[in-house]
Amino acid sequence: MALSTRRMATTAVINGERLWSALMAMAEIGRTPAGGVRRLALSDEDRRARDLLVEWLREAGCAVRVDDLGNIYGRRDGDDAGATAVVCGSHLDTVPTGGRFDGVLGVLAALEAVRAMRDADLRTHRPVEVVCWTNEEGVRFAPAMLASGVVCGRFTVDEAYAARDQDGRTFGEELRRIGYLGKPEHRMRSAAAYVELHVEQGPTLEEEGAQVGIVEGVEGISWGWADVTGRAAHAGPTPVGDRRDALVAASRIVLALRALCAELPGVRATVGRCEVVPNAINVIPGAVRLSTDLRARTADLLATASRRLEEVCAAVARDDRVEVRAREFWQSPPTPFHPAVLSAVADAARDLGHTTLRLWAGAGHDAKYVADRHPAGMIFVPSSGGLSHNEAEWTSKDDCVRGASVLLGAVLRLAAA
Amino acid sequence: MALSTRRMATTAVINGERLWSALMAMAEIGRTPAGGVRRLALSDEDRRARDLLVEWLREAGCAVRVDDLGNIYGRRDGDDAGATAVVCGSHLDTVPTGGRFDGVLGVLAALEAVRAMRDADLRTHRPVEVVCWTNEEGVRFAPAMLASGVVCGRFTVDEAYAARDQDGRTFGEELRRIGYLGKPEHRMRSAAAYVELHVEQGPTLEEEGAQVGIVEGVEGISWGWADVTGRAAHAGPTPVGDRRDALVAASRIVLALRALCAELPGVRATVGRCEVVPNAINVIPGAVRLSTDLRARTADLLATASRRLEEVCAAVARDDRVEVRAREFWQSPPTPFHPAVLSAVADAARDLGHTTLRLWAGAGHDAKYVADRHPAGMIFVPSSGGLSHNEAEWTSKDDCVRGASVLLGAVLRLAAA
Repeated sequence: MALSTRRMATTAVINGERLWSALMAMAEIGRTPAGGVRRLALSDEDRRARDLLVEWLREAGCAVRVDDLGNIYGRRDGDDAGATAVVCGSHLDTVPTGGRFDGVLGVLAALEAVRAMRDADLRTHRPVEVVCWTNEEGVRFAPAMLASGVVCGRFTVDEAYAARDQDGRTFGEELRRIGYLGKPEHRMRSAAAYVELHVEQGPTLEEEGAQVGIVEGVEGISWGWADVTGRAAHAGPTPVGDRRDALVAASRIVLALRALCAELPGVRATVGRCEVVPNAINVIPGAVRLSTDLRARTADLLATASRRLEEVCAAVARDDRVEVRAREFWQSPPTPFHPAVLSAVADAARDLGHTTLRLWAGAGHDAKYVADRHPAGMIFVPSSGGLSHNEAEWTSKDDCVRGASVLLGAVLRLAAA
Repeated sequence: MALSTRRMATTAVINGERLWSALMAMAEIGRTPAGGVRRLALSDEDRRARDLLVEWLREAGCAVRVDDLGNIYGRRDGDDAGATAVVCGSHLDTVPTGGRFDGVLGVLAALEAVRAMRDADLRTHRPVEVVCWTNEEGVRFAPAMLASGVVCGRFTVDEAYAARDQDGRTFGEELRRIGYLGKPEHRMRSAAAYVELHVEQGPTLEEEGAQVGIVEGVEGISWGWADVTGRAAHAGPTPVGDRRDALVAASRIVLALRALCAELPGVRATVGRCEVVPNAINVIPGAVRLSTDLRARTADLLATASRRLEEVCAAVARDDRVEVRAREFWQSPPTPFHPAVLSAVADAARDLGHTTLRLWAGAGHDAKYVADRHPAGMIFVPSSGGLSHNEAEWTSKDDCVRGASVLLGAVLRLAAA
């Protein structure tokens, strides 16, 4: 089997020029003046991107179907018609000022993989499916990874349909409007394996000089609010000793969370939002809301970080004579990927001679929800300067080709079994 | 002289019931459901309050005039028609959710003083004028103390007329609309002394158990921005060591400014505003703007505080690998009040047997600009819990009467000379 797999992997080869030209053509849809991409989920731009993908999948000989979440599947049959498929893909939607690689690389590399198989007239044992998930980013319709979440049992379809954008339009209405409301029976029901290629969105591969990341899992995330209540008062006549300044207290929490990262290696804590009331230059802040974002690879470590956050808030409340209420409002547990998928990725990278690094994904991906139900894994390629969710996002052509080649190799290994 | 002054002060007596009922009647104009007052400068409520004041001043025998800033003067002649007047008053405008005492107490206590003089048929050597300044709060038309600032040479009348509210209406248009555009020749050109009674707006008198505050001056104020520029990045994949988190850096500045207050006794530093960009839960803040409010009694101390603020920003920039730009955009120098006015206030309070405390005003008042040109001083009475700019603002009837009695005593002393 190993021998025959290796023969197949060498017979189907990624066409780097074709992959790159597909990436650049897709980047024209929703292109921003600064050279980024704005292609919000279920927008007209998303529809045009989908139409182009469907056209390309059909040209590559795939049978295309769309499910009731708008997820698009392009299936290439294998020798065993009854075998469960190996699925690979990602998403085409972007954040409002996004880049050309986040999501789209995983979809178009999967397309290039089936194009390469077709060029080589290569037959796999299992079917191979390219998937494009709807609304991964979650910026138009919260939460993120909504459609893969429904397919994998995390949300109900009604929850997805009811999600509203800022203008009050629902996911369900917009899905119908752009013509991508398909059938429930078209959903991915099973998968022998799922592999997603994605840009790292962080600086680690570049800093470590590794070409390909073998992603061991998705870190657990805990999102919460820390609400600090002090006492608003005039900045002029109020003596310092009498103040119960909510921003001073909130600043202590921000710094304590930073210190917590040093104290608990493997934990990352971020305060991304800070809202001050009344937010006037000459009024001592009466209330501050901070967001808290904790990430770690194990449930134990994440729980320890949450407990430390609570302790920090209690200490600040006591020392600064304010009230602090910290509460988690969303959690995604740590999700290790499947050993068989990791092995297929590692073997493919090794055979191609690429340098690799094992790392964990700090951000959510559709692969996370898929992994709750099916054997799944991910491949990362470097993000220049670690930049992502940014119009200047960049991954070199060589890196894209290396990632697509590893994806193809992994898929062929998994589809052979 | 001292003997005759004392006789006068005992013959004219504040009528506490009349003062209180005037305060409560005025509080009906712009009354909020929570029992506070919303009487923005040059609004319809301000017009009604002005109309009532003018009616009361005329009933008290005063000659009323209005200047080109809408400042209202009620003049009670003295024995010497050519002598410069002793002026006392404050303002009738409020913040959007203001209280019943801030400003209005100083105007109605001045009115009550001339009513008391009339009741006693008491003649002063100098004329006594009650003044109501336009737009002290500065919340509708920035900056604060706009009309006293013009009269005392700080701003031009054109600057005042051009000031716009949030709806785009100008001070000049609104002044004309409410019928209070008077004549330039009616401005206060000279004053033998100016005395303003005001609620403390802070907790010091209450905490120290003093009935009356003898205000030695208005502290200097320096307002500025500290702009922190870091690097926005995804909260997930970005290692802690690679972060240039603008909110972490800003938090260090907030805490360093708090520490600065302990290091430099007499300085108060406040960060009232904090704006985070992009302010998203899963994005490391790329930029933060903090407001800085520094106050001190001497120019030297204020300059030292400003220099320390710059040093703090430079140190944070270096340690956190961010850029920090701190710049002052407005300054009001420390303004000591006039010894003769302070003596008159202290003597009046002593003769009445009230407990006193000498303190500085931490907030701006019309008396500050008046003091730049004329001998001026202020009297404070306690604010319950230090609350002000708040619908729950409260000063007891006894405290109001004590303050008005000290004002009357001081005015009689100053008008006798």
